[in-house]
Amino acid sequence: MAKRAKKPKRIYYFGALKTEGNKEMRELLGGKGANLAEMTSIGLPVPPGFTITTRTCAEYNDSGCRFPKELAKEIGANVTQLQRETGKTFGSADNPLLVSVRSGAAVSMPGMMDTVLNLGLNDKACEGLAKLSGNHRFALDAYRRLINMFGDVVMGVDHHHFEGEFDRIKKKYRVQEDTDLDARGLAELVEAYKKVYHKYTQEAFPQDPMLQLEKAIRAVFDSWNAPRAIAYRQINEITGLLGTAVNVQTMVFGNMGDDSGTGVAFTRDPSTGKNDFYGEFLINAQGEDVVAGIRTPQHVSQMKGWKPKVYKQLIGIKNKLEKHYKDVQDLEFTIERDKLYILQTRNGKRTGAAAVKIACDMVKEKLLSEKEAILRVPANDLTQLLLPSFDPKAKRNVLTRGLPASPGAAVGCLAFTAEDATDRAHAGEQVILVRKETSPEDVEGMHAAVGILTSTGGMTSHAAVVARGWGKPCVCGAGEIHIDEKKQTIAVQGRKLTSRDTISIDGSTGEVMSGNIATRTPKLSGDFSTLMKWSDKYRRLGIRTNADTPEDAKRARGFGAEGIGLCRTEHMFFEGERILAMREMILANTETDRRAALKKLLPYQRRDFIGIFTAMKGYPVTVRLLDPPLHEFLPHDEKSQKELARRLAIKTAEVKNRVSQLHEMNPMLGHRGCRLAVTYPEILEMQVTAIVEAMITCKKKKIDARPEIMIPLVGTDTELATLRGRTLETIAAVRKAKKYTGKLHVPVGTMIEIPRAAITANQVARHADFFSFGTNDLTQMTFGYSRDDINTFLPDYLEQEILPKDPFQSLDPEGVGQLVELGVRLGRETTRQLKCGICGEHGGDPASISFCNGVGLDYVSCSPFRVPIARLAAAQAAVTNSA
Amino acid sequence: MAKRAKKPKRIYYFGALKTEGNKEMRELLGGKGANLAEMTSIGLPVPPGFTITTRTCAEYNDSGCRFPKELAKEIGANVTQLQRETGKTFGSADNPLLVSVRSGAAVSMPGMMDTVLNLGLNDKACEGLAKLSGNHRFALDAYRRLINMFGDVVMGVDHHHFEGEFDRIKKKYRVQEDTDLDARGLAELVEAYKKVYHKYTQEAFPQDPMLQLEKAIRAVFDSWNAPRAIAYRQINEITGLLGTAVNVQTMVFGNMGDDSGTGVAFTRDPSTGKNDFYGEFLINAQGEDVVAGIRTPQHVSQMKGWKPKVYKQLIGIKNKLEKHYKDVQDLEFTIERDKLYILQTRNGKRTGAAAVKIACDMVKEKLLSEKEAILRVPANDLTQLLLPSFDPKAKRNVLTRGLPASPGAAVGCLAFTAEDATDRAHAGEQVILVRKETSPEDVEGMHAAVGILTSTGGMTSHAAVVARGWGKPCVCGAGEIHIDEKKQTIAVQGRKLTSRDTISIDGSTGEVMSGNIATRTPKLSGDFSTLMKWSDKYRRLGIRTNADTPEDAKRARGFGAEGIGLCRTEHMFFEGERILAMREMILANTETDRRAALKKLLPYQRRDFIGIFTAMKGYPVTVRLLDPPLHEFLPHDEKSQKELARRLAIKTAEVKNRVSQLHEMNPMLGHRGCRLAVTYPEILEMQVTAIVEAMITCKKKKIDARPEIMIPLVGTDTELATLRGRTLETIAAVRKAKKYTGKLHVPVGTMIEIPRAAITANQVARHADFFSFGTNDLTQMTFGYSRDDINTFLPDYLEQEILPKDPFQSLDPEGVGQLVELGVRLGRETTRQLKCGICGEHGGDPASISFCNGVGLDYVSCSPFRVPIARLAAAQAAVTNSA
Repeated sequence: MAKRAKKPKRIYYFGALKTEGNKEMRELLGGKGANLAEMTSIGLPVPPGFTITTRTCAEYNDSGCRFPKELAKEIGANVTQLQRETGKTFGSADNPLLVSVRSGAAVSMPGMMDTVLNLGLNDKACEGLAKLSGNHRFALDAYRRLINMFGDVVMGVDHHHFEGEFDRIKKKYRVQEDTDLDARGLAELVEAYKKVYHKYTQEAFPQDPMLQLEKAIRAVFDSWNAPRAIAYRQINEITGLLGTAVNVQTMVFGNMGDDSGTGVAFTRDPSTGKNDFYGEFLINAQGEDVVAGIRTPQHVSQMKGWKPKVYKQLIGIKNKLEKHYKDVQDLEFTIERDKLYILQTRNGKRTGAAAVKIACDMVKEKLLSEKEAILRVPANDLTQLLLPSFDPKAKRNVLTRGLPASPGAAVGCLAFTAEDATDRAHAGEQVILVRKETSPEDVEGMHAAVGILTSTGGMTSHAAVVARGWGKPCVCGAGEIHIDEKKQTIAVQGRKLTSRDTISIDGSTGEVMSGNIATRTPKLSGDFSTLMKWSDKYRRLGIRTNADTPEDAKRARGFGAEGIGLCRTEHMFFEGERILAMREMILANTETDRRAALKKLLPYQRRDFIGIFTAMKGYPVTVRLLDPPLHEFLPHDEKSQKELARRLAIKTAEVKNRVSQLHEMNPMLGHRGCRLAVTYPEILEMQVTAIVEAMITCKKKKIDARPEIMIPLVGTDTELATLRGRTLETIAAVRKAKKYTGKLHVPVGTMIEIPRAAITANQVARHADFFSFGTNDLTQMTFGYSRDDINTFLPDYLEQEILPKDPFQSLDPEGVGQLVELGVRLGRETTRQLKCGICGEHGGDPASISFCNGVGLDYVSCSPFRVPIARLAAAQAAVTNSA
Repeated sequence: MAKRAKKPKRIYYFGALKTEGNKEMRELLGGKGANLAEMTSIGLPVPPGFTITTRTCAEYNDSGCRFPKELAKEIGANVTQLQRETGKTFGSADNPLLVSVRSGAAVSMPGMMDTVLNLGLNDKACEGLAKLSGNHRFALDAYRRLINMFGDVVMGVDHHHFEGEFDRIKKKYRVQEDTDLDARGLAELVEAYKKVYHKYTQEAFPQDPMLQLEKAIRAVFDSWNAPRAIAYRQINEITGLLGTAVNVQTMVFGNMGDDSGTGVAFTRDPSTGKNDFYGEFLINAQGEDVVAGIRTPQHVSQMKGWKPKVYKQLIGIKNKLEKHYKDVQDLEFTIERDKLYILQTRNGKRTGAAAVKIACDMVKEKLLSEKEAILRVPANDLTQLLLPSFDPKAKRNVLTRGLPASPGAAVGCLAFTAEDATDRAHAGEQVILVRKETSPEDVEGMHAAVGILTSTGGMTSHAAVVARGWGKPCVCGAGEIHIDEKKQTIAVQGRKLTSRDTISIDGSTGEVMSGNIATRTPKLSGDFSTLMKWSDKYRRLGIRTNADTPEDAKRARGFGAEGIGLCRTEHMFFEGERILAMREMILANTETDRRAALKKLLPYQRRDFIGIFTAMKGYPVTVRLLDPPLHEFLPHDEKSQKELARRLAIKTAEVKNRVSQLHEMNPMLGHRGCRLAVTYPEILEMQVTAIVEAMITCKKKKIDARPEIMIPLVGTDTELATLRGRTLETIAAVRKAKKYTGKLHVPVGTMIEIPRAAITANQVARHADFFSFGTNDLTQMTFGYSRDDINTFLPDYLEQEILPKDPFQSLDPEGVGQLVELGVRLGRETTRQLKCGICGEHGGDPASISFCNGVGLDYVSCSPFRVPIARLAAAQAAVTNSA
C-alpha cells in the first residue's frame, strides 16, 4: 500500500534546541530564512526563531487570503518551543518574549517587504521589559515603536499620523532628538499612539501577542501582492516565486543603552571590492535606524575603539562566513549590552567593479575555482565598468559632496518626485532624481532616472542599495542640499536650482556638480582582463559584434569581438554625396538610370568595406545587403524635396510622386529587405560588387578579408535560391572582370527573421551557408508587435503582468525562442554543420545568451560595448550547462 | 547484385501495331498523349503516332536546351515503325508520310503550345501528295501551310510576312477567299513563302523531313518556357509539372475536298450542360480553321444531312467515349474523303451551370455515383451560377448579337488591347476587352477584363474556351461590329463607340448592349440544390459565414450557412450618431468620460446583436470584439476635425492631438485587437454587455440566440486569461443586473492569428472554449507581408516564380498552414474536443478548404456568397480524403 501523503511542513525552527532548515532551502524558506537556519547550524550567535514557508504564503494567497486552518496551531507549537529555549513568555510581566516578524523571499528584495519589530509587547509586557532591562524608558520606546510600526505596516495607518504626535510631544517637552524624550514623555507618546491607532483602525491596539503575531504574518503575506512589490519584481525581472517566507525571531536590542548598538556590514567593500571589512553601526539604536538613513552612522572599524572584544568576535565571524559561503556577505548585527548577535547574513550586492575584483581575489585566495568565479559576476553588471566616467580634465563646478553610493557618472535635469522622473524620462529626457531619502514607492522613478541623489542616508540606505543593484550612479547623504519638494527647487551653497537645471553626479566620488560635465570611456582593470581570459577559456559561443564602420569595428576588436555578425550597409548611404546618388537611384525611372546612379555609389561602398575588412582582418564580417524601405532615404519635407529636385534637375512633383508612391501603410511588412533585391537586382549587384572588389583589394595587400554576404528578410527558400544565384553570378563576374585568380571564399547566407523562414528552415538551409537569427524582426512578427509603436500598450502589459518583460529586451523563450530553436534544428537537418548565430539586440542580453548557448548557436553578435558582457554571459552559460 | 538501372523510356507509340501508354499516364505523356493512347486502345479510329514524354522536355530544358543524345535515335525508330504501319514514307514522291507535331502537358492549356501541321512535306513529297490525292491544289495548299506554320512557330518568322505575300498573290489573281486560289497561284505562293522563310531565317526551308521533325520538337520544348506559357500557368495556378509532351501523329486531311471536313464537338452542351451533342464543323478545312475562328462553322447536327453515315459513327463514338471516361468529352475529328478519324478527346471544359447539370444528369443516368458527381464540379465554378445576371426588366439597348460563348453579365468600358485592359483594370476600372479574335498573347488582358467581346470566331474559339474556363462572360463572333484598333473605336449599327463608352454584354444570350444595364442575383436551379444536398451529405466540415449585419446573416442562411464564424463589430460603429459617440469615447481623457460615451453606444450594439442573433437563430454567432486601431474611427482631414470638435464642444487642437497621438508607424502591428481591451477594459465591458443583454432579450422572446465571444489578436496565454476573466465577470454582472436566472451559455474563445499564439497554442487553449484561425493576419505576420502594401512587390514575385501564388488568395500550406496545423494539434493536446475553425478569407477558397479538412478543423467561415462553394469544396475534400 502507498504511504499516506505527508502533510506539508509549514514551519521550520532554528535555535539551540533544533534547526530544521539549511541554506539550500531558499525556495521554501526564502533567502533570510535559509540563511538564519544555516547560520544557526554553523554555530553563529543567532537569536532563535522559526520560519513560515513560502509555500504557505502561496497557499494563503491562492485561497483568497485565507489563513490555513492548521497554521495557527503550528505557530502555537513553535512559539511554545521558542519560550522554552529563551525562557521568555509572550506577554509576561516578568520576562516577556518579543519577536521580529520579517518577510524574506527566495530572491532578495530590499525594502520591499514590510517588517514588524518588538512584536509581543503589550501594556503588561512593557512593564515586564522595563523590569527586566531596568530601563523604563527603553521599554516604552520599544512599545511606541511597535504600535507605530504595527499600525503602519500591518493596519495601514499612515506613518505621518504617528510622526505628528511624536513632533507634538517632542515640542511639548522641548526636546530635539527622539532619544532625548524621557520616560514620562514616552509614556504619553504610547497613549497618544494608541489613540491614533484606534482612530484610524476603529479597534484598540491588540493586547494579545498571539493575535499580534497572526495579524503581522498576514500583513507579510499580503505585502507579496502589494503594487510596489509587483513593480519591483517587474523591474528586476523576478518571476516564478511562490511568495515570501515569514521569519519570526526573538528580538535583541541595540537600543538598550550606550553598551548596545546595531550595524550592517559587508565582509568586503561592495563598492570597490577591496578586502576590507566594511560597514556602519549606530550606538544605542535599532537596525531600522541604520537602513532608513535617518541618522548618519559610524564606520564599522570605529567599533574597535568602542568595544574591542566584540569587534574581534565580529571579525572572527566575518572570516568564518566568507569561508562558509564562499562569497561576500552582507550581515546585520546587534550588540545587546555587550553581547553580539548576528541577525542576518546574505550574499552582498556589489558594484560591477567590486564583483570582478572580489571574484579574482577569491580565486587567488583559493576560496573559489575559476568557474565559480565566473558565476559570481552578474554579466550585466559589467556595464558599470564599461560605463563612461567624467573626463578628469573637465572643469568640475562642485556644488557639494555626498557619499559615493553607486559608481558611475550621470548627467541630467532635476526631478523631484518619482512620478515626475518617470514621466519625463519616458518623454525622452535625462533626469536625476533628487530626494531627501528614497523609499520603495520611489523605485519606478529611480529606475527611470539616469542617477539618484539623496540628502540623507548612508551607503546602505535604500537609495544606495537599490542603485548599486542596477549599476546606476548614486550619491547619498549630501546633507548640504536643502530640498523644497513643493517649490521644486534645491538650495545648495547659496545657489538655487530648479527642474530645468542640469547637474552631474559622480557616484564614485560622491561629487555633485552643476552643469553638464564631459564623460569618457573607462580603462579596464587587470582583474577585468583576468575575468575575460577565464570567460574565453570556458565559453563555447563565439562573440561577434554589430558594427557598420571601421571605428566601431576597431572598438569592438578592443573589447574582444571575434568578427562582425551584422554589418548594416544602409548607414553607409547617408553621408554627403552618397545620399544624393542614393536618391538619384531611387528616383530613376529605368534600370539604366538606376545603374548609372548605383555606379556612383560603388566606390563609396568599396572604400567602406576595405576599411571594415582591414579593421577585422582575419575575422569574418557578415555584410547584410540593403534592408530598409527606400522611402527612408528620401526627404519628406517640402524644402528638402525642392532642393533635391533642383540638384537632380528634375521636377519637384517627381520627387513628391515618388515619395507618395513609396509610402506604405506598414513599412515594417512592406517593400524592404530582400524584396528590394528581387525587384531591383541591380542594387544587389552593386553591393556584392563592392564587397568582392574590396575583398580583392585587401587580398592584394595581404589583408585577410573574410566577408560573408547576408540576405535579409528571407521568407521562402525560392527567394533565397534566386538571390543566392544572382549573388554568385555577380561574384563570378567581378572575379572575371578583375582577372583575380586567387581563392575567393564568400559564404552566402541569410537572416532568419521572418517566422516562415524559421518554420521552413530545412528548405531555406538548402541555399544558405549560414543562418543569422534576426530576433528583433522575428520578435516583431512572432508577437505582432511593431517596435516603434509598442509603447502605446507595453506599459499596460507590464503593469498588468500580462508580459513578464519587454520581449525586445530579453528574448521570449516560449514563443520567439521556440522559432529560433526550430530554425536551428531544421536548418541542421539539411546541413549538419550549418553555422548559426544571432544578430538581434538580444545578442547582448545575458538571459538571451544563455538561451542561445542552450539551443546550440555558434555565436552571438552584439554592440561593441556589450561584447565583454556577452563573453562573460557565454562563459556562465557554458559553465552552468556543463555543471 | 542490383539490376542495372533501366534507361528512361522517352517515346511511347500508339497505333494498330502496338500502344504503349494509357490514360493514367497524364504526367508523363501529357493529357493529349495519354488520351491518344487510351483512345487507340479502346478501338477508336485514331491516326497512329507516338508521344515524347514530358520528362524528356524537362531533360531538354534542364540541360540548357540540349537535345538528349539518344532521343534522335529513338525518334528514328518510331518514325520507322510509323512508316511500317501506314505504308507511307517521309519525303516520298509516291506515298509521303505527313505528321502533326503538337504539344500537350498534363494539364490542358488551350492555345498555349505551338503546333505544326503537315510536317514531312518538301518539294518531292508535295509532288507525291499531289499524285496520291490526285489534287495538286490541295498538296500545294498543305505545303504552303507547312512553310507558314513552320516558319512562324518553329523559326519565329512573323506570321504577317506570310500573310502579306498571300494578300499580294490573292490580289494578283483577283480572288477573295483563300480557297479560291488555284494551283498556279498556290505554286507561286509556295515559292514566295520559301523566300520569306529564307529572308527572315537566313537559311533555306529544310527539305529533310527528319530535320523538320527535330526542329519542330525543339520548338515545342522551347514553348514551355515562353513568357505567355508562364503567364498562363501563373494565372491558372498550374505548378509542379515537368514540361510538355510532344505528340507526333500521322496527318489526316479535312481539306482534301468537299468530301472532307473537320470539327470539334462536346458530348454535351458545355454552356448549359444539356445532353445534346454539341459542336461545330467546317467542310474542306483543317482543324485550325475551326479553332482560330477565321471561318464561322456549322453546327455538328448539320452533318446528318451532309454525311449521315459518318454522323452516325460519330454519335456512336460520342456515346462510347462518355461511357468510357465517365465525363463530358471535348473531341476533335476529321473526315478525310468520307473516312472519320478522331484526333483528340479530353474532358470538356464547361460552365459552372453546365458542370452542375451534367454531374446531376450523369448520376441519374447511373454513369456516376454521388461522390463522383461531387468531384466533377470545380467548386470555384459555382461562382458563375451565383454571379448576377441582367435584370430582365431593365431596358436593353441591344447594339448587336454574337454567340453566347460564356455565360454571365458584364458591364464595362471598352478596351482595345490586352495591355490597355490590364493597365486600366489594375487602375481600378471595369473594362470589356474587344478584339477581332483573341490569341494566347491576350490572356493577361482577358483575365483583367470583366468580359470579352470578339467580332469573329465561334463557341470553340480561343476567346470562348478561355473565358468559359474562367467563368468570365464572353460574347464571340459578333460580326456586325467593326473594330478600328488604331483609332480605338468600334462601329456598330451606325454608332461609334470609344474607350470611354460603357457597354453591357450578356454571355448567356450573346447580346451586346450600350450603357450600363442593371444586374440581379441569380435564382439557383434544382440541380444546384441536389448538388448542395449531396455536398452536405458527404462533407465533414461545418460551413459558417462572415457577416456583420442581419441582412448578410439572412443571405448567408439562404446559401446554407450554419452560423456566423466572424461577426466583426467595428462596422457597427460607423453609421450616423454611433460614430459620434465612438469618437467621443476615443477623445475622452478619463475612464469616466470613456464610460459615458460607451454608454451611448451600448443600445446600438445591443440592437445590432438582437437582429443578427434573430437572423441566425439556433446557430452560433461568433462575435469578435473591437479589432482595428482607434485612429481608424477619427477624421483625418482638417474640416472634419473642426466639425467634430464643434459637435463635441472641444478644441480642434484636442482632436488633432489625439489623431497624431494615435498615429502609428505600423498600425498592423500596433495598438489594436485585444490590446485595446487590455488598456481600455471598459470597451470590452460595453461590448460584452451588449452581447449578453441582446442574448437575454432574444431568450425572453424564445429566440435561440447562441453568441460566442471571440477575443482577437491574442499572442500570449496570459493575455487571453486576463480578458477571459473580464469577460466572464461582465457576463455575471449583466446576468445579475438583469436578474436573469435561465441558462446563459456563452463560450469565450480566441482568434489564432499571431504566430506566437499558434506556437504556444497548448497554453492559450487553457483559457479558450474555441479557436478561430484568422489566416489573413496570420499570413501577414508569418510572411512579414503587409496586405495593404504587397502590391509593391508581389507582381515581381509571381513573375519571377518566387511565389507560386498570392498567399492571401490561397493558404500557404508550407508556412502558414504549418502554423494552423500546429495550433490545432497543440490546442487539442490541452483540450481534446477544442472546436477549431477558420475565419480568414481563405475559408472560401477550395484549395484552402481542402487543407482545413485535412488538418481537422471543425468548420470554415467565408463570405455569404461563397458559402455554396465552401459546401461543395468541403464535400470534395471529404470524398477525396476518404477515397
